[in-house]
Amino acid sequence: MTGEFEAIERFRQLLPGPPAGETWIGDDAALVVAPRGGLLLAADLVVAGVHVDLDLVGLDDMGWKAMAVNVSDIAAMGGEPTHALVAVAAPPETDLHVVFRGIADAVEAYGCPVVGGDLSSGSQLVISVTIVGDAGNRPPVLRAGALPGDTIFVTGPVGGSAAGLRVLREGREDEAKELADAYRRPQARVSEGRAARRAGATAMVDVSDGLAADLRHLADQSGVGVVIDNVPVRDGATMDEALGGGEDYELVFTATNAGHVVAAFAETGLRQPIAIGRCTSDPNERRLGEGELPVAGWQHHWA
Amino acid sequence: MTGEFEAIERFRQLLPGPPAGETWIGDDAALVVAPRGGLLLAADLVVAGVHVDLDLVGLDDMGWKAMAVNVSDIAAMGGEPTHALVAVAAPPETDLHVVFRGIADAVEAYGCPVVGGDLSSGSQLVISVTIVGDAGNRPPVLRAGALPGDTIFVTGPVGGSAAGLRVLREGREDEAKELADAYRRPQARVSEGRAARRAGATAMVDVSDGLAADLRHLADQSGVGVVIDNVPVRDGATMDEALGGGEDYELVFTATNAGHVVAAFAETGLRQPIAIGRCTSDPNERRLGEGELPVAGWQHHWA
Repeated sequence: MTGEFEAIERFRQLLPGPPAGETWIGDDAALVVAPRGGLLLAADLVVAGVHVDLDLVGLDDMGWKAMAVNVSDIAAMGGEPTHALVAVAAPPETDLHVVFRGIADAVEAYGCPVVGGDLSSGSQLVISVTIVGDAGNRPPVLRAGALPGDTIFVTGPVGGSAAGLRVLREGREDEAKELADAYRRPQARVSEGRAARRAGATAMVDVSDGLAADLRHLADQSGVGVVIDNVPVRDGATMDEALGGGEDYELVFTATNAGHVVAAFAETGLRQPIAIGRCTSDPNERRLGEGELPVAGWQHHWA
Repeated sequence: MTGEFEAIERFRQLLPGPPAGETWIGDDAALVVAPRGGLLLAADLVVAGVHVDLDLVGLDDMGWKAMAVNVSDIAAMGGEPTHALVAVAAPPETDLHVVFRGIADAVEAYGCPVVGGDLSSGSQLVISVTIVGDAGNRPPVLRAGALPGDTIFVTGPVGGSAAGLRVLREGREDEAKELADAYRRPQARVSEGRAARRAGATAMVDVSDGLAADLRHLADQSGVGVVIDNVPVRDGATMDEALGGGEDYELVFTATNAGHVVAAFAETGLRQPIAIGRCTSDPNERRLGEGELPVAGWQHHWA
């Protein structure tokens, strides 16, 4: 949305800032120290016609997505989603049961129950989900924290969601069902996020805006440079889709000891993350191979 | 919204239910036992053209209201709001800064910081707020729990919000500013809710749907009858507005020992709550004076 960054920055200026030890607006999820301990909090909207095209995906897919993108924000902190709240504004003709079925699928997949919410009429289908997550006993993994020399990993090939959208637009979902599903039913990487955290990840972000854009967020907030020499492109996707497409929800993280990462992922039986580059000490360096890491993707998150 | 109850009931059937000691969908806020202790969670939407008429109130008032109605849900459990998340879908021409100013006013008034959220374009202004509250060390006050013989209290006269809406529609806000403000800037009764809880309140609900409807919710969920002999109507409001108007956000609560209530409110310097009737042992009794308590108001909350 035009002027979104500026609007959010002006909003921040109206608001009190976090006390020491808390992270509010600006990371994947907020970290707060409630009276009874550390909590992760994430809230993202999914709007029909803006984030999803209901000619291409089902109402159940939209419900799933609203849950998954928020679960992913908790995953990107290395946290565990514990409770969801779901608020829906919907035109009267909406088949809410189908929306709710997709939400219920995600509740089951992520073990994250819906404990409350709201329902209203509206001119456009809007699903607003808030996820509460457990921060655990140690500090979660923020976007800031990467160190020069750290290896950069991604939990899987990217570009599948953008390729899936292309496939759906071309009406070819029957011949490329896996890609279409990557768009319709993105997977949040909760176990991977926890493994990365256990392995000592220094910074982490989910690939929601596109690998290039999310790498830039991580580098900007950590104050490091990045040099990428390997972009794992999902089968059937293009390099542009991998770098700029977004909505893959794989996790990008940095770690000082790559051996710890291999061990932590092996221990849990998860697919090994892919090393894609390293952090450097020049905070302005944003390199892909011999060129510049593109500025791409659409940044709409603020926690 | 038509079919809302049915849709929510069908959604509930798709979802896992709460473990012992938790309260999910169906009260003012959800009570959950997170890994680190008890939390209250409330999420309500405010939709332009549905919940507010932007010809009558400002964008800042809408922002305030989205916060206040959710803070009120925490107040109605006897809890303390600690953190807010705000997700906004807005048409491109919306002056977001004015929306955010109203939200910031409520952040200050209730000491409840915004720690995250989201912003998206949309065809209609929708503000979705989630409030996290501290449940404290003892169980919060649910809608269920009232006992036959309990005295029923309300924290202040009601009908002001509906009267304020009428005044605004008639263009008479200059001569009845207090009523107009009751509609534009409803007040959540956090201190009153905590005092009621300390006084041993057995059940509590906020007057969001109208005194008659909310009394019915409390009685239905507690399995008691109610006999009302005193409806405190706000100056300038009608009896119909008091019983059916809603959006007053005063708290209705029940207590077995009325003396404890007087003492708890006196101790904190709050205006004394008003005794309006009593609970009876006939679960079907819904009496107002010599007649039937009206079935009125618009129920849209599910947590």
